Amino acid sequence: MSSAFPDPHAAASTLPEVTICEVGPRDGLQAEGQIIAAEDKVAFIERLGAAGLRTIEATSFVAPTWVPQLADSAEVFAKVRRLEGVRLPVLVPNELGLERALDAGAETIAVFVSATESFARNNLNTGWREALADAEAVTSSALAAGLRVRGYVSMCFGDPWEGRVPVDDVLTVARRLFEVGCSEVSLGDTIGVATAGHVRELVGRFTPVERSRIALHAHDTYGQALANVLTALDGGVRIFDSSAGGLGGCPFAGSATGNLATEDLVWMLEGMGIHTGVDLHSLIATSAWMAQLLDRSSPSAVVRALSA
Amino acid sequence: MSSAFPDPHAAASTLPEVTICEVGPRDGLQAEGQIIAAEDKVAFIERLGAAGLRTIEATSFVAPTWVPQLADSAEVFAKVRRLEGVRLPVLVPNELGLERALDAGAETIAVFVSATESFARNNLNTGWREALADAEAVTSSALAAGLRVRGYVSMCFGDPWEGRVPVDDVLTVARRLFEVGCSEVSLGDTIGVATAGHVRELVGRFTPVERSRIALHAHDTYGQALANVLTALDGGVRIFDSSAGGLGGCPFAGSATGNLATEDLVWMLEGMGIHTGVDLHSLIATSAWMAQLLDRSSPSAVVRALSA
Repeated sequence: MSSAFPDPHAAASTLPEVTICEVGPRDGLQAEGQIIAAEDKVAFIERLGAAGLRTIEATSFVAPTWVPQLADSAEVFAKVRRLEGVRLPVLVPNELGLERALDAGAETIAVFVSATESFARNNLNTGWREALADAEAVTSSALAAGLRVRGYVSMCFGDPWEGRVPVDDVLTVARRLFEVGCSEVSLGDTIGVATAGHVRELVGRFTPVERSRIALHAHDTYGQALANVLTALDGGVRIFDSSAGGLGGCPFAGSATGNLATEDLVWMLEGMGIHTGVDLHSLIATSAWMAQLLDRSSPSAVVRALSA
Repeated sequence: MSSAFPDPHAAASTLPEVTICEVGPRDGLQAEGQIIAAEDKVAFIERLGAAGLRTIEATSFVAPTWVPQLADSAEVFAKVRRLEGVRLPVLVPNELGLERALDAGAETIAVFVSATESFARNNLNTGWREALADAEAVTSSALAAGLRVRGYVSMCFGDPWEGRVPVDDVLTVARRLFEVGCSEVSLGDTIGVATAGHVRELVGRFTPVERSRIALHAHDTYGQALANVLTALDGGVRIFDSSAGGLGGCPFAGSATGNLATEDLVWMLEGMGIHTGVDLHSLIATSAWMAQLLDRSSPSAVVRALSA
């Protein structure tokens, strides 16, 4: 549909190349109460790949008791048909998870830490220094095994316990992850409170080289995700996390933690003439199908507008 | 809530002054099938004023057969308590509407035209040149009567029949409205297909003086409204239309034409340190109350996140 409204900038050679990291099958599904069958997860990942997404976070090797939805991670990861040029990172919480990921044949893993002490204590069940040390250890082991490692930093803007998160704290953690060998670091607006000025400030504090290797993981809790992406894009960020159909959290509840919908991101980027390689209609059909399995409507504006 | 995350830019003296034109009582309600009682409309407008909004489009003096929801415009407008410093523009389609607006004591009116021939033919029941001529005539009469006139241009980005709308066409129409005496001109993304590059291009074509007098009327149909506002703001636009609670159209249907929610706009601006004068909690309570009267949930992300 965006092709009906081509952007005059489309021909410009200065348009940035942008990478979308699709997190629907992991970050999206893990928050859903309705358990999805392994074969449907496999089909979901394969359809996302067929729609043109080139980085798809496939699953998470966390303890099944932590995230029941992803208890079938090994089975799902084994069954997914590999497509050339499609990276399938998997989330790994610790050395045990790394072992399982290696057994499953993962080539890229993601580790996660918190920018704040409170979130580490409350959600990761450890201090942030300890979480960082654990992530460093897992990263080293993964690198030694020849894997590529992505780092996630949670709570990079606001924290429900601590309020506004100091930019310096985020810089410290993100730089540490780069130092120990993460090839990219994703900055999470875990509770969705970031606004454009804050994004501009944080992004501006990274060096240009760092900036080309950070990702923004924006949440749409307060409707700010795309405005924040645009600000980061203007500031030199080139990697953006999003979730097919806006999967993740319950977008209509008070605790909304809805991920930015990949469709809304693709719509904006293509409208700006930035080629994503994503077939929007195929992606929308995939998200509409998943929404049906989950028995709820998609929170993505583009999915709602084009699939009705 | 935004105050929990103060932006470091808040203290900067270079922050722009932004005007929000609240269109919920007119543009928002007119699309709602559920008829709201006149006293509730009056309360709605008064509550919006009490929440700090300084420009509130109160109603429309169109023929009742066109917009049954606003058939009580004279009654509503007569009953609304005036607050000092609060402007209450009313929409006026023609000379007859202007007479009714004058009788009702309106001080600011809004006229509307289309940037495309197809929309004029299909929705205004006339050609775009004729619509422009009518708006010019009404504007002249209104100025002669001492009123202030705002101009609306519909379909400034995409048109369902014509596709992408040429920037030159929008410039022509908007400039004509300035020439005949409109104090400001609101550029409507009526079907919500604008993306950041297109907004940047259109805004960039206006002179700085014109830019200070244009408003962006963004729709969130494809989730792009705030990204487009941010782009226009960066380009020098200082007036933004929005609708309390995102009222307007049915945001969950295929024909979604949801206005940008005032709450989401305020959240972004305040987060950037741009003072809006709006009490967000009071505004959210007002939108939640109106959503209850309309028997549906608000499409505003901020309302959903903070009122659950």
